[in-house]
Amino acid sequence: MGRKTFKRSRSHFTDRITADGADGWPVEADRYRLVISRACPWASRAAISRRLLGLEGALSLAITDPLQDDRSWRFTLDPGGKDPVLGIRFLHEAYDARESEYPGGVSVPAIVDVPSGRLVTNDYQQLTLDLATEWTGLHRPGAPELYPEKLRDEIDEVMEGVYEDLNNGVYRSGFATGQEEHERAYGDVFRRLDLLSERLAGRRYLVGETITEADIRLFVTLVRFDAVYHGHFKCNRSKISEDPVLWAYARDLYQTPGFGDTVDFDHIKRHYYGVHTGINPTGIVPAGPDLAGWLTPHHRDQLGGRPFGDGTPPGPVPAGEEVPADHRP
Amino acid sequence: MGRKTFKRSRSHFTDRITADGADGWPVEADRYRLVISRACPWASRAAISRRLLGLEGALSLAITDPLQDDRSWRFTLDPGGKDPVLGIRFLHEAYDARESEYPGGVSVPAIVDVPSGRLVTNDYQQLTLDLATEWTGLHRPGAPELYPEKLRDEIDEVMEGVYEDLNNGVYRSGFATGQEEHERAYGDVFRRLDLLSERLAGRRYLVGETITEADIRLFVTLVRFDAVYHGHFKCNRSKISEDPVLWAYARDLYQTPGFGDTVDFDHIKRHYYGVHTGINPTGIVPAGPDLAGWLTPHHRDQLGGRPFGDGTPPGPVPAGEEVPADHRP
Repeated sequence: MGRKTFKRSRSHFTDRITADGADGWPVEADRYRLVISRACPWASRAAISRRLLGLEGALSLAITDPLQDDRSWRFTLDPGGKDPVLGIRFLHEAYDARESEYPGGVSVPAIVDVPSGRLVTNDYQQLTLDLATEWTGLHRPGAPELYPEKLRDEIDEVMEGVYEDLNNGVYRSGFATGQEEHERAYGDVFRRLDLLSERLAGRRYLVGETITEADIRLFVTLVRFDAVYHGHFKCNRSKISEDPVLWAYARDLYQTPGFGDTVDFDHIKRHYYGVHTGINPTGIVPAGPDLAGWLTPHHRDQLGGRPFGDGTPPGPVPAGEEVPADHRP
Repeated sequence: MGRKTFKRSRSHFTDRITADGADGWPVEADRYRLVISRACPWASRAAISRRLLGLEGALSLAITDPLQDDRSWRFTLDPGGKDPVLGIRFLHEAYDARESEYPGGVSVPAIVDVPSGRLVTNDYQQLTLDLATEWTGLHRPGAPELYPEKLRDEIDEVMEGVYEDLNNGVYRSGFATGQEEHERAYGDVFRRLDLLSERLAGRRYLVGETITEADIRLFVTLVRFDAVYHGHFKCNRSKISEDPVLWAYARDLYQTPGFGDTVDFDHIKRHYYGVHTGINPTGIVPAGPDLAGWLTPHHRDQLGGRPFGDGTPPGPVPAGEEVPADHRP
């Protein structure tokens, strides 16, 4: 009633890096740097796509500290507190290099042009689609088709529902400033989860018979659900691990190279519980949940499906990009 | 490190109502009033004992609003905002009648002497033991022995571990002001739950083969666990419903007359999430969890045991004391 509902900021910088360089940013190896936080689901999409497509050698990766301060995302994890490639301490420096005294929000994922130090894009909705469809010249041999042309309408439709009700729905639930607003979002979240559970009961992946962008976007929310959304964001009808279909689907993807090897549960928990002081003023991070279940057999291969289509799984995680052992199940 | 850990206040008023009236308060029908909040686990012990022992006709019941304000527990649910028997609006009035300008905390359960309007006791640890052992002359026919003399050592020992690690452990977890303090309490909670789960795997009740005070004290924490302690108090290794033994044990008791019919999930959730603004500043109450599971078959009768020993279950809930249908599963 007159209260303001949670609204996600639009991406401000929507230039695209394309094969034809139409926006002035042609796809090129060793030119750009992808900046992510492993805590952030929107950024984690890009980390997964980059692994699945084998872009690690062409597009380098910077990982921020999971805790922002009033200067937003920081390279505090790097030696000297500076990103070794961009030479900056705060991601906002790349934003400022793009637009002087940029007053808006600083978000990840972000792609920065290394030679100029300027931000190219923070458009999380377009960014991964372009990795899948514009960066093809740099994909590894055997890379999957994550956004195949003949399935785009269906993928887009699935992703739209997942976005509104789930990817963003959990935030609307957690950041609600009124009871009704929370309950509406909570209803959306679980209505959508139930629909997805039905859809996935008889098929291994969301669209077609292979992994697509739609699976990536659902996975990043599912993998955070029991650890942060269930308690911290009050999405507590049930855990993902209580839905046999969604839980097996999430484990299947987690155990697929390129998915679980990008997930840092320590960063995820410390970010959400540490940064949102408006809903967790003590900053204390719950010690749970027990993560061991993520590694248990999922038996989803019995449903058929071909994870990488005619392609192959990605190779091992590049040295220096491994998630620390104590941040994993 | 140097931070103050959560300490539960001691009860200030520890007079006992006894058969011999040694403290000046003899057991007597229609003389005392039990004041509870259905939200409060300590008070809920007394509500359950009163039902199991059939003391409803002898010891009347006042139920406070689940939300305290700065004047503490209120009779806001009663017509005119006044307890119809005591004629007071706030429980603190009975405390003040006992000790003028009483400056300490006002807590439930409390027993008030109706003729004088004075508080007799708020000693939640002793109060239910006295209902079981001193009020015997007013027990219903077929009332169980909740604190049988020959099992007291074992009951006391079980209750001590349950108190430290669990009844109070969840509060230490939730009100921790430091990360280590939370993690220590969380460790205590789940170590104790695991021990109890082992103990209860092969036996229906905690001590002996019948329901005792020990079961009551464990139940009041278990029934709140998934609804409030798991999320709000950060006890999130796992839900009770994820432990097949404890979940069946809790459902068995919930479905036993005298237990579940005292449980008001609406009061429980609104109290915890509404009152503890230090850990939930928005006051928003999560819409979950799904409560339907509480009514599913538990099969614990296969373990043997005789819930009421040589006695019988209590009769129906007295008119006017029913938990509203929309506050139950």
